[in-house]
Amino acid sequence: MKISVSLERFKKGLGAVEKIVASKSTLPVLNNVLIRAEDSQVVLSATDLEMGVNYYLGGKVEKPGSITVPGKVLGSFINNLSEDKITLEVKNNVLYATTEKSEASLNGIPAEEFPPIPEVKGKEVMFINSQTLKAAINQVGFAASFDESRPILTGVLFTLSGGALRMVATDSYRLAEKTVAVDTKEEASFIVPIKTIQELYRIITEPTDVKMVVSENQVMFVLPDMELISRVIEGEYPDYRQVVPKSFKTKAVLPTHELASTIKTASFFARENANNVKLTFRKGAVGIEAASSQLGSYKSQVGGDITGEDNEISFNARYLLDALGGVEGEEASIELVGKLSPGVIKTEGKKSDVMYIIMPLRS
Amino acid sequence: MKISVSLERFKKGLGAVEKIVASKSTLPVLNNVLIRAEDSQVVLSATDLEMGVNYYLGGKVEKPGSITVPGKVLGSFINNLSEDKITLEVKNNVLYATTEKSEASLNGIPAEEFPPIPEVKGKEVMFINSQTLKAAINQVGFAASFDESRPILTGVLFTLSGGALRMVATDSYRLAEKTVAVDTKEEASFIVPIKTIQELYRIITEPTDVKMVVSENQVMFVLPDMELISRVIEGEYPDYRQVVPKSFKTKAVLPTHELASTIKTASFFARENANNVKLTFRKGAVGIEAASSQLGSYKSQVGGDITGEDNEISFNARYLLDALGGVEGEEASIELVGKLSPGVIKTEGKKSDVMYIIMPLRS
Repeated sequence: MKISVSLERFKKGLGAVEKIVASKSTLPVLNNVLIRAEDSQVVLSATDLEMGVNYYLGGKVEKPGSITVPGKVLGSFINNLSEDKITLEVKNNVLYATTEKSEASLNGIPAEEFPPIPEVKGKEVMFINSQTLKAAINQVGFAASFDESRPILTGVLFTLSGGALRMVATDSYRLAEKTVAVDTKEEASFIVPIKTIQELYRIITEPTDVKMVVSENQVMFVLPDMELISRVIEGEYPDYRQVVPKSFKTKAVLPTHELASTIKTASFFARENANNVKLTFRKGAVGIEAASSQLGSYKSQVGGDITGEDNEISFNARYLLDALGGVEGEEASIELVGKLSPGVIKTEGKKSDVMYIIMPLRS
Repeated sequence: MKISVSLERFKKGLGAVEKIVASKSTLPVLNNVLIRAEDSQVVLSATDLEMGVNYYLGGKVEKPGSITVPGKVLGSFINNLSEDKITLEVKNNVLYATTEKSEASLNGIPAEEFPPIPEVKGKEVMFINSQTLKAAINQVGFAASFDESRPILTGVLFTLSGGALRMVATDSYRLAEKTVAVDTKEEASFIVPIKTIQELYRIITEPTDVKMVVSENQVMFVLPDMELISRVIEGEYPDYRQVVPKSFKTKAVLPTHELASTIKTASFFARENANNVKLTFRKGAVGIEAASSQLGSYKSQVGGDITGEDNEISFNARYLLDALGGVEGEEASIELVGKLSPGVIKTEGKKSDVMYIIMPLRS
């Protein structure tokens, strides 16, 4: 292999693939980045076996070929260079990198040992604006579980139906659902691992359209210069619709920011008590309380419009804060049945496209 | 105790003392902040037994008194409030904090259990501009040792003599010396623990004059609203002047930024080899090399003005980068005797007020 590439593009490409590169994997080749030159295309790839990313560099290919080299060292080294061009040449599994002023050699591992990143030959289900997608990930992703004992909950459910994309995540204590209108007639349903979602969020740095391609076992997110390929989580996602209360007895409309700030203050007093914050709904205001026998106690209230019955409920303050962070407007609504039923949080006054459900705590 | 204080001042005061507050000390009172109200003054204090800080809050004292409460919780709680005023009252070792909208209680520990922060009744040795002091700390502090087996090296030596303050730190592998002109006729010499120096750096947030007061065992740094009091390290500081080479055989004058950037790139290849970077001095340029059997190798050069004999030496790249970071000008000088003698790094073309000495490595 002998190629010449723009250092700026090379830095960008390494930035895109580097998070997937392991730093101390027991399988050494997973610590490496694959550099592959074919015809007039140079591709950087990295994989952690669950997902892989390909970044298309462009560049001048004098001699096709390939090599893998340690990703972290290559990244540190390349990012510190300030020249325009770099020439990369492979001889005997060593990568020689030459710039105007310096030359480096990096011991590599042959490309043949690099785990193949699958090609996804499925149907193109849709295009989505990258900023819309990032916002939706922000509103939903935090509710996914990191507990591998129920793998299905460590993913985000994507459901495409009737021109809308619905994204759902739950860790069984709380649930987030976001609906986005998309211009497609396709129908599909698949579960994307939360790690893939986080990586997708990270690599989207510019406004663009993101294409999704789905096959039976894989999903591919295609961006202008790169593609992120991931397995999907197999199995049946729980029928979460059944936990959504059909009606409510109390509804509070409250200023989102003030409520969040008060819950946050209360949470410092709730730390030793499973983050338990008690909300009391009375005409005109919601009272907020937290206490810990060791530390002390806190009490405050937030004024708002409370309709229906007086009510009270205890929530994990963190779940409430996460939900309020996802609410899009200046006013949030909280709908309650009673203190043993889940509470529903939405953006008030908006044909609601985001919904949070939080299970109550015993107070 | 019953007082009313500005929340803004209270936040600032807690910010100043909070780093000294332990979070999980086995002596619970060390996790606490002391709030003391006397006459028309409210003082916040924290100590880790080695140093202490007093912050003068001002405020309205209705009833004098004192209490200690957990610092981290108090800080989190207070920082999240957005009102103007807070009222603090103590009853039965509980602190009641009331704002317009909320009330909190925090269980405290009586002030009598709080370790006294010594009053330093020594001589005022000098005033120094806070920004000059911060810059000097930046240039010298990194060379202090964190190895408690030689306590004397875990401090920064302050020597006041002939209208100049000299600050010196060394971990025995490298040494940093900075000289600042100060307007005083006092003579003094004392060793300040590096932790105190770091804390001093942190609490100086605005341009002001810092007063230093020294007694036999203590030093006090006085800022407009607060004072930092610390023990000094007892013992004799090593006579570092004897390691400063009296003459040199080679002198290189090199562009500081380019040299640092090249050393940094080389350092990625030196990690597995004790950060060993080799410098070769020839007419017109310094060659820079690093290699690791496992990883690969790197070679570059930086053009400059080399006078005297050809020479070569190996340094720990990190020490070289630290020193170049402290050089104040666009050109740095490196003076060498030979590859087994310490190298001297200074700012070129300036009546040099900063000097670094680095011990060589075997190449």
